[in-house]
Amino acid sequence: MGEIEIGLGKAGRRGYGLDELTIVPSRRTRDAELVDLSWELQGYRFELPVLAAPCDSVVSPTNAASFDELGGLAVLDLEGLWSRYADPAAAFDEIADLPDETASARLRELYQQPVDHDLVVERIRAVRASGAVAAGSVTPQRIEALLPRLVEAELDMLVIRSTVLSAEHVTKTSADGGEPLNLKTFIRQLDVPVLVGSCTSYQAALHLMRTGAAAVLVGVGTAVDATTADTFGVGVPLATAIADARAARMRHLDETGVYVHLIADGGMHTGGDVARAIACGADAVMLGAPLAAASDAPGRGRHWAPVAARAEVPHSTCVRVEQHGTQREVLVGPSDSSDGRLDLMGSLRSAMALSGYESLKEFQKAELIVSPGDRRGQS
Amino acid sequence: MGEIEIGLGKAGRRGYGLDELTIVPSRRTRDAELVDLSWELQGYRFELPVLAAPCDSVVSPTNAASFDELGGLAVLDLEGLWSRYADPAAAFDEIADLPDETASARLRELYQQPVDHDLVVERIRAVRASGAVAAGSVTPQRIEALLPRLVEAELDMLVIRSTVLSAEHVTKTSADGGEPLNLKTFIRQLDVPVLVGSCTSYQAALHLMRTGAAAVLVGVGTAVDATTADTFGVGVPLATAIADARAARMRHLDETGVYVHLIADGGMHTGGDVARAIACGADAVMLGAPLAAASDAPGRGRHWAPVAARAEVPHSTCVRVEQHGTQREVLVGPSDSSDGRLDLMGSLRSAMALSGYESLKEFQKAELIVSPGDRRGQS
Amino acid sequence: MGEIEIGLGKAGRRGYGLDELTIVPSRRTRDAELVDLSWELQGYRFELPVLAAPCDSVVSPTNAASFDELGGLAVLDLEGLWSRYADPAAAFDEIADLPDETASARLRELYQQPVDHDLVVERIRAVRASGAVAAGSVTPQRIEALLPRLVEAELDMLVIRSTVLSAEHVTKTSADGGEPLNLKTFIRQLDVPVLVGSCTSYQAALHLMRTGAAAVLVGVGTAVDATTADTFGVGVPLATAIADARAARMRHLDETGVYVHLIADGGMHTGGDVARAIACGADAVMLGAPLAAASDAPGRGRHWAPVAARAEVPHSTCVRVEQHGTQREVLVGPSDSSDGRLDLMGSLRSAMALSGYESLKEFQKAELIVSPGDRRGQS
Amino acid sequence: MGEIEIGLGKAGRRGYGLDELTIVPSRRTRDAELVDLSWELQGYRFELPVLAAPCDSVVSPTNAASFDELGGLAVLDLEGLWSRYADPAAAFDEIADLPDETASARLRELYQQPVDHDLVVERIRAVRASGAVAAGSVTPQRIEALLPRLVEAELDMLVIRSTVLSAEHVTKTSADGGEPLNLKTFIRQLDVPVLVGSCTSYQAALHLMRTGAAAVLVGVGTAVDATTADTFGVGVPLATAIADARAARMRHLDETGVYVHLIADGGMHTGGDVARAIACGADAVMLGAPLAAASDAPGRGRHWAPVAARAEVPHSTCVRVEQHGTQREVLVGPSDSSDGRLDLMGSLRSAMALSGYESLKEFQKAELIVSPGDRRGQS
Repeated sequence: MGEIEIGLGKAGRRGYGLDELTIVPSRRTRDAELVDLSWELQGYRFELPVLAAPCDSVVSPTNAASFDELGGLAVLDLEGLWSRYADPAAAFDEIADLPDETASARLRELYQQPVDHDLVVERIRAVRASGAVAAGSVTPQRIEALLPRLVEAELDMLVIRSTVLSAEHVTKTSADGGEPLNLKTFIRQLDVPVLVGSCTSYQAALHLMRTGAAAVLVGVGTAVDATTADTFGVGVPLATAIADARAARMRHLDETGVYVHLIADGGMHTGGDVARAIACGADAVMLGAPLAAASDAPGRGRHWAPVAARAEVPHSTCVRVEQHGTQREVLVGPSDSSDGRLDLMGSLRSAMALSGYESLKEFQKAELIVSPGDRRGQS
Repeated sequence: MGEIEIGLGKAGRRGYGLDELTIVPSRRTRDAELVDLSWELQGYRFELPVLAAPCDSVVSPTNAASFDELGGLAVLDLEGLWSRYADPAAAFDEIADLPDETASARLRELYQQPVDHDLVVERIRAVRASGAVAAGSVTPQRIEALLPRLVEAELDMLVIRSTVLSAEHVTKTSADGGEPLNLKTFIRQLDVPVLVGSCTSYQAALHLMRTGAAAVLVGVGTAVDATTADTFGVGVPLATAIADARAARMRHLDETGVYVHLIADGGMHTGGDVARAIACGADAVMLGAPLAAASDAPGRGRHWAPVAARAEVPHSTCVRVEQHGTQREVLVGPSDSSDGRLDLMGSLRSAMALSGYESLKEFQKAELIVSPGDRRGQS
Repeated sequence: MGEIEIGLGKAGRRGYGLDELTIVPSRRTRDAELVDLSWELQGYRFELPVLAAPCDSVVSPTNAASFDELGGLAVLDLEGLWSRYADPAAAFDEIADLPDETASARLRELYQQPVDHDLVVERIRAVRASGAVAAGSVTPQRIEALLPRLVEAELDMLVIRSTVLSAEHVTKTSADGGEPLNLKTFIRQLDVPVLVGSCTSYQAALHLMRTGAAAVLVGVGTAVDATTADTFGVGVPLATAIADARAARMRHLDETGVYVHLIADGGMHTGGDVARAIACGADAVMLGAPLAAASDAPGRGRHWAPVAARAEVPHSTCVRVEQHGTQREVLVGPSDSSDGRLDLMGSLRSAMALSGYESLKEFQKAELIVSPGDRRGQS
Repeated sequence: MGEIEIGLGKAGRRGYGLDELTIVPSRRTRDAELVDLSWELQGYRFELPVLAAPCDSVVSPTNAASFDELGGLAVLDLEGLWSRYADPAAAFDEIADLPDETASARLRELYQQPVDHDLVVERIRAVRASGAVAAGSVTPQRIEALLPRLVEAELDMLVIRSTVLSAEHVTKTSADGGEPLNLKTFIRQLDVPVLVGSCTSYQAALHLMRTGAAAVLVGVGTAVDATTADTFGVGVPLATAIADARAARMRHLDETGVYVHLIADGGMHTGGDVARAIACGADAVMLGAPLAAASDAPGRGRHWAPVAARAEVPHSTCVRVEQHGTQREVLVGPSDSSDGRLDLMGSLRSAMALSGYESLKEFQKAELIVSPGDRRGQS
């Protein structure tokens, strides 16, 4: 099904990126104000289907509160600068002022400072104190050590995230005799919803769903500047990754009766990208760079992924992002621009209105057109 | 039929843009002067299959007359500056002189001035007085309020147009209990031909045809700078949209015996684009930017869509258009250039002659080649 | 077979350009000097499968001789400057010195000078006197008037060529009652081989073959700067056009026992393009711009098609061509460059050697790969 | 199977480049340090699946030793400057300082100096003395003359390489009556492993395997700047070439029980390209330009293929390469950059870890996605 012969001895499958798709309007349109963008995740209701990615350049304990007020869900990187420095202000200042050539190297030095578990607790509590949903991100490597402190801090929602996350990760220890790390054991210990990812295939998504996760992240979101596909040749174009994970969700629902949410993670820049991701099957999206581009984002014109802070390969560089407007303007406008980088949720709302869909679940049924050609320059 | 697996859980269909097509010459060629470009719309005969789009930058009451003389049909935006200002000259002057950065914002301010229904009547009468067919465009939101005045002014032809128009639009009122707006009820009240659009799918086209419209606009023509596809992810490449609407026309003709005309709306720049649109099934084309680029166009080097004037999303910006020649030169030459942006109708005529077709209806049968590759640089 | 659904109401066929193809080496390679590039056309043998296009910027009576010596066949435009001016040197000088803005317009003025039939005879005799094969090109419009003089001048080979040539062209006269112009009647009157074109489809090629032509030109060669496809939307990508004409040749051969040669006409820039055209089925190629780029070409850095000289649409502009080397260097080297624009025949020879083919007829059987991707940047 | 109709009279097959592919992560990931990159070639074990291409700009007798220490296999061009000059230092200095315009021409002059068979022996012995595996490259034209000296010098491994190599090459001599050159006869005379190539098709690969070669090079690696495809139209996109050769390897293994290694040769720039090549079926890769770009490469910022040194067509030019880091950094890092041009083996290791594969043989089974779209710009 869809098999392509790369050569006589190897076959592949065609994959599609979001930018190859457009959404076909249905026969009925509706007013934008009649469109409902809300969604629920295990009892938490959000007005907007958007998560702020756990990057120090995107989410701080402070702006997590304003993001929550706007209707989204901000995820704090619990291994970021806020968990390494009692007062990270100096570190942020330094990064903002670094020349481009040395930014990535210095960044890695700043992240040499160890994670302080007490600070992790403190940061979670700060977010909770603001009244926002306290969501934090941890890498699979650290989840075991941090788990008791997360419980202690009463974290509302946990994200376990790395560039590519599998349900069973083989490490030296496990290879030396023990079992591979099993996400399931950790997830079952927690009372709170757990989001895991990223993954890019049907099998990986299905196995992550079987860990008991409330949601699965789909994509290669943690690699700020597309490191994964370009450097490693690894990855699946996002539209195909989401559609494959959607099939996994259907199977998992059929087998267990449990609906696991899909969060499209990374690679979306405009409201149209968000709309396409949802039409492919995503329940919500996780955004990094578009939010780092807000004038009031912690990164102050720079964006870096958690992965940038680690010494091992893959390296991800610290990149400049063009600043467009405030967090609010990026998310819900008002916008004076027509390039789709501001008012992402207004654009999503309009896309749904124009296409005639009232809710996100309905919009997932939208008809799609594949059109690799350049669609710019219409009049 | 033509289904593409985007991923295991979602399928789509391949769509084609006009720029992916070329027309295959038949085995017989003919002289260009033997080609007949005329067409009829409910008793009105036009020498050229071209409509000027209802944008203030394209059509004024004055140049509607010259466009009519050349053989085309100019559509005045009845919610434009001419219906808001007794003397819009100052507003046009100001727009022409605005710096690029502030043009779009100031434009929206200028359109805050309310539509004056008496002026609407006056403008229609001015066009009628010139001897031209008086065609005007109204948005679905205003059609109910304006209808009596249009009748009073003896409008010859009515265009109901928005970015995406459906036969049944759900508004707050209708959702609160009543029925959705029903275009059919308005169209049946009018004795004059009504053109409606734009739409981009088989189902939407079919439903618009069933409203009793004389013609359906196909495309995303009102979004000057391709706002729709880029910002919202919504849309269908024009060749596919036309070919789908053509199938709807065939079905509607079969069911009712009524032939509804298809007007390709937007996204065409050269005579070759016009030729391709007709070969796909369009009976005529509606042009915006190519006509705004005329040195004697009202926009004087700027082009903006009606949508640009509204506060709500989608925003469309005011764009600069490179001026090529006069309205006459753009339409029927003479042209010294070979880039296809002048003498659009001469190019269409030559395309038909080279391909061996004598009339527009015959030309719709032309054989097409899909060729996504870059076709430039031949020798 | 190969049908593509453009939309529900219109289908097309996928077409391929030469630049989408590569030739697969066979299992046996051979030395380049063992490759035979010769071919025969009704008793005339040529060492190289290349014709110089009938453009004033490419062929003069003088350089036709040197082209013949190199092994190719130069075709003089019998309606060009040499047939309009007793001494066209001043006209050529003026064109060479024109600023780009005014070149095309002035060119058309220079070609207002009527064709002098005595000069036509004189030019043909000059080529014959040089010992070269005297081949000249005439448009279908003039063939009737010029025919007796061509016979009188003992033209060796006649090319009847226009942008798109069909076997039956409908003109005002013919439409008013008479028969369409019938190429067949002219071709049968001539004892010499006649080459006709250009055409781009199976049906058109088949009908041209049935006129009794010795060879059919395939492509849109006369439109110097790709006017046809871009301006009119008319045309077929060259690889597909050749392969379609090849099928027509097979059918014609089957029906009549006569092998009609195919000349790929235009759109080729490098030796690789020539090789691909032959692998698709061409027996030889007709080159314009690559030869106009020779430092000793009559155009002296400018190139224009015969069509550029006519007042009617299509217009083709006078373009600048980057000068690379002499006619000899362009054709047979030596070349210091690796961009493929010099030593076109050496490149063709190497392509055949690398692929393991000894003769042009064998090379037409080469296996082809379609690869739309960018193939540059290998190491 | 996979046949494409180019036109009615000619068919082709779709070919894929490495840049059109991405690797799908499997459901299990693993730590990078658990990945094993080693491979064996007839008793020689290498820690890294990488060969340094036999270009004077890439491999010198000195840096062959360091390359060997890093775990790769360096191949010295036995017809290069080291075999023509007792002390080639002056020649290398001159090339490094040449202006771009004259570099290629002067290069050819420098290579006019005849190959000195005694120097060939000396260079091989120098590499052996360093403790590295002594691998050298010879063209098919010279293999007969050099063979006894290679045996005398105790060469460890022989590479017979030209742009396109076939098992049976027809030369003037052979055409005049004798048999075509038969690689098999030479290969059987040698006790050492022989690597032959490059080839790009199933048939050619199969025939090269039947010569008794230990490994077959796949690609058009010797043409530094993609001369082959662009200039000649000859070639097969690398992913398809490897996958076709893989099928030949399976057949040869089935027929003979002998596993012939596939070396992807040329056209790879990043660790991702290397990963894709192996996922297509390559056992190792041969790199030219990426290694010539090392700051300590012999080419000192210039790169030229052996073919550049020969007078006959095809010409390949001497190109500038952007210098990134040392040979060690290019191969195994450390790397501060995320563009994938440094730490190629670290990137390959990460690709395998992310995808969940432990060994190269396993990685060849990785699932592939074809995605021609631009995958850059993710966030």
